[in-house]
Amino acid sequence: MKPSSDTWIVTASCPSRLGTVDVVTRFMAESANYINEIHSFDDRVLDQFFLRIEFTPEDENFSPEQFNQHFARRAKPFEMTWQLYPVTKKDRVAILVSKFDHCLNDLLFRYRTGQLNIEVPVIISNHPDLESLAKWHNIPYYHLPITPETKREQEEQILQLIEQYQVDLVVLARYMQVLSPEMCAALNGRAINIHHSLLPGFKGARPYHQAWEKGVKMVGATAHYVNNDLDEGPIITQGIQPVDHAHYPEDLISKGQDVERITLFNAVRYHVERRVFLSGNRTVVFSN
Amino acid sequence: MKPSSDTWIVTASCPSRLGTVDVVTRFMAESANYINEIHSFDDRVLDQFFLRIEFTPEDENFSPEQFNQHFARRAKPFEMTWQLYPVTKKDRVAILVSKFDHCLNDLLFRYRTGQLNIEVPVIISNHPDLESLAKWHNIPYYHLPITPETKREQEEQILQLIEQYQVDLVVLARYMQVLSPEMCAALNGRAINIHHSLLPGFKGARPYHQAWEKGVKMVGATAHYVNNDLDEGPIITQGIQPVDHAHYPEDLISKGQDVERITLFNAVRYHVERRVFLSGNRTVVFSN
Amino acid sequence: MKPSSDTWIVTASCPSRLGTVDVVTRFMAESANYINEIHSFDDRVLDQFFLRIEFTPEDENFSPEQFNQHFARRAKPFEMTWQLYPVTKKDRVAILVSKFDHCLNDLLFRYRTGQLNIEVPVIISNHPDLESLAKWHNIPYYHLPITPETKREQEEQILQLIEQYQVDLVVLARYMQVLSPEMCAALNGRAINIHHSLLPGFKGARPYHQAWEKGVKMVGATAHYVNNDLDEGPIITQGIQPVDHAHYPEDLISKGQDVERITLFNAVRYHVERRVFLSGNRTVVFSN
Amino acid sequence: MKPSSDTWIVTASCPSRLGTVDVVTRFMAESANYINEIHSFDDRVLDQFFLRIEFTPEDENFSPEQFNQHFARRAKPFEMTWQLYPVTKKDRVAILVSKFDHCLNDLLFRYRTGQLNIEVPVIISNHPDLESLAKWHNIPYYHLPITPETKREQEEQILQLIEQYQVDLVVLARYMQVLSPEMCAALNGRAINIHHSLLPGFKGARPYHQAWEKGVKMVGATAHYVNNDLDEGPIITQGIQPVDHAHYPEDLISKGQDVERITLFNAVRYHVERRVFLSGNRTVVFSN
Repeated sequence: MKPSSDTWIVTASCPSRLGTVDVVTRFMAESANYINEIHSFDDRVLDQFFLRIEFTPEDENFSPEQFNQHFARRAKPFEMTWQLYPVTKKDRVAILVSKFDHCLNDLLFRYRTGQLNIEVPVIISNHPDLESLAKWHNIPYYHLPITPETKREQEEQILQLIEQYQVDLVVLARYMQVLSPEMCAALNGRAINIHHSLLPGFKGARPYHQAWEKGVKMVGATAHYVNNDLDEGPIITQGIQPVDHAHYPEDLISKGQDVERITLFNAVRYHVERRVFLSGNRTVVFSN
Repeated sequence: MKPSSDTWIVTASCPSRLGTVDVVTRFMAESANYINEIHSFDDRVLDQFFLRIEFTPEDENFSPEQFNQHFARRAKPFEMTWQLYPVTKKDRVAILVSKFDHCLNDLLFRYRTGQLNIEVPVIISNHPDLESLAKWHNIPYYHLPITPETKREQEEQILQLIEQYQVDLVVLARYMQVLSPEMCAALNGRAINIHHSLLPGFKGARPYHQAWEKGVKMVGATAHYVNNDLDEGPIITQGIQPVDHAHYPEDLISKGQDVERITLFNAVRYHVERRVFLSGNRTVVFSN
Repeated sequence: MKPSSDTWIVTASCPSRLGTVDVVTRFMAESANYINEIHSFDDRVLDQFFLRIEFTPEDENFSPEQFNQHFARRAKPFEMTWQLYPVTKKDRVAILVSKFDHCLNDLLFRYRTGQLNIEVPVIISNHPDLESLAKWHNIPYYHLPITPETKREQEEQILQLIEQYQVDLVVLARYMQVLSPEMCAALNGRAINIHHSLLPGFKGARPYHQAWEKGVKMVGATAHYVNNDLDEGPIITQGIQPVDHAHYPEDLISKGQDVERITLFNAVRYHVERRVFLSGNRTVVFSN
Repeated sequence: MKPSSDTWIVTASCPSRLGTVDVVTRFMAESANYINEIHSFDDRVLDQFFLRIEFTPEDENFSPEQFNQHFARRAKPFEMTWQLYPVTKKDRVAILVSKFDHCLNDLLFRYRTGQLNIEVPVIISNHPDLESLAKWHNIPYYHLPITPETKREQEEQILQLIEQYQVDLVVLARYMQVLSPEMCAALNGRAINIHHSLLPGFKGARPYHQAWEKGVKMVGATAHYVNNDLDEGPIITQGIQPVDHAHYPEDLISKGQDVERITLFNAVRYHVERRVFLSGNRTVVFSN
């Protein structure tokens, strides 16, 4: 459901115990916030509670500051953390690319047609190739070449741009560089990568070639958060594509593009719509 | 999530207004019922609210009578209807068949392995063919032949069996008879049919032959509630199967069997797990 | 399999009889053409034979004229029609659009990255909106507005452009105009349309609204050849997208875009790769 | 297409060179065998040619012995191996099971309804549980318990039964024993196993538990030939099932059953319909 402009989202999480839903919904009723949709999940293994609510304030002068201030008192006994977002707020998303443009083209298409409720303040690449695509969308494009010697320096430049452009989320849209541990740490939890295999299968380089060697009948893509361990970050979503014996590695690369871009789009959408929660190294995703 | 034996489900519906979620969840907290999962939906067009909660009472002596009695006072101002079920309660499902046994075989397999949380007290058919399959599962099998002259009489016999065996749900598992309007009315809301096309396409007889004539590249199946208008009842779920030029009508019939049985299974499962709500001639389904 | 630049395709069709495959493959062997892939189908109902071969000439000076001249003698007794194409030949594809650009954007992306082996010499629209997208791809864009009074005149202009630009195939990429019977006749067999429903369900206008009214759980798209009867042309391929109660018509429109564009892309690809044969009002598609 | 009773299948393979198709199709024409469908593939990497033809002899007294005798002369210069089967011949399939019966139940259902063109002369298990299911289908059931000490002995018993019942194909339908290298060698190329993950991901024991640990959003199943290396045999086909955070390992086990049984059924069907060729450690599958 496309929420209307006066819709807000509140997400919350805390240890599982009696009353976790009630403490939120009671507050919503008392403060005259109309719940459009509520979804919760209790992780029985970790004893952790997750909640997502879309609501419309009945008060036209709804104040998020007052919401947060008043709700803090209710949340405290539950050790509940929560976050409040207006759906009108667009996350500022930086896109990192190399030479492949299928993911970039797809994200930009959905950005300019409004399918993705985001801003794209900056595109960064280690190659100059995709500048004209950025330009046509009136988005600043930074070409930051990289060599083994300049890797840390280049990554510092990226981090500076991320700060300068007040970026909320970094999307690695087939950015073909292995991030340094420092860079991973700096982006932890606020960067999404697309890997062109069904992780944990075919980690590392040239996954489609690995897949062909094994003679698999399905290839896939995995969108995951970046964390310290390459290709091991929490998985947000995955997609697949059936293939057969007639597909050589170069065909898998071509066939896989549609899965990669749709999988990455879904992950970004789930993230900016506040549908994703971290639960250890796994994710809770209230998809729709 | 497979609920444990002390899990209960409450479903509720009422006109949309502020506090609909709160009135339920507050009651749940006050009566010490732990919410495992909550899901709601507000139909913006019909202004109708739908809610499903899975919960575990903290009180070992949880009394559904007391729940209903106490909650009635809360529900009344909202004009809310609700229903309470223990997941240990197995719906009593009567299965109607003709000669095709793929849906029957599938339902019985899931029934005896516990995938479907149901009892099957009786199987009814207008043909004798499937008796041995019923017998092997120790389920009474009634062969009620039908002719144009005996149709109403045969339907009366079916209705008597439904009453005699205290049936909660009737499943038409490829029962190849057009029900009379009286029979439809008698089963309204408590019978699920599987139609072997993606309704509203290819209504009526021989849908796979119709599909072949049109040269479609996908065939499907639709599970829906029975209502007065044949093949027009509210759709619960649908499934599809890609096909190509090499599939003649008899191949479509064979190919479609897997879609039919999985689609029918899903519909029955959603129904008995209290995931389906009627909303006009449409359904709200909190699938999982 | 992506064929290499010296690959040719031959397609053939004739009434079914003994020796149909042999007459082609014997000729291929005798003329030293290496068969990479062969696929045939015999329609038992229409008694019609269809064949598609990808081959590589061993003779570097392969002459298509000689092929055609020599093969004609072999084909005649079988009443066989055939066509020969070098894979290096790019079909010239004119794209017709209105205001929606998801299909156009997708086709142009695949055209410029080489996924679609085509030329796009011209884009024609009844609206000015998508000119800049065409411009960025250096493709001439003709804005030909239309009114009930000017319909035939505008269609004449389109036909003239099709001739002027030596167009092989016309793609109606969500072109929101009902073609006149004359226009349909003029484009018969060389135009592909995308309809946003699983035909024959939800023909005509606003199919997503129709689908919502019926409460279907799947929406889809159909790519078909244009013929005289609107939305009744031979189906090339279809795609689907599961939906649920939370999707209002405007959500279906948004959700359906991915299915529409991938379905249209597949149809165009099958067509230009010579994988599609007409068989009455049905198609034979040797997909891969 | 369901072939009629007078249909034969010929499969052939040899090193790639000019005339491989022709040598077969010319022979077919000269010996008055009508080709219903032909499909070929040339593996560019291994330079190996694969061919499958479905044909109907025009001669009512078609003699496979004469076919083989005469074709041998043609095949020799190409070093071509081939095999000829009447579709009326039913492969004799032994099914090995443990306690899970979803795959067994599915195979037996398709066997008794004719969807699978096989005989099932014997069912073998290391547990007594599934005997009554075998009995109901009038199939001998051998309970051969196994301990670490009796493993080789039990495997010998299985091999004797396979010989005694003239078994063409062994299907490991969730047979929960690791075969010894000797047993693997004895079954090499004539046994199909179903593994409950998308190989090469989650090899070995408890793949659904492994999948849950990793937080994957899709689980799958892989049907493969048995060879010496456990879970490394050539893959025939794979299937998938989307899952989410609410699925615990026990839910994945339950959810995965439908994928396992359909994937195993498809692999067995492809095998008995002579659609599968070995190509190194990969397979060529002319699926339909």
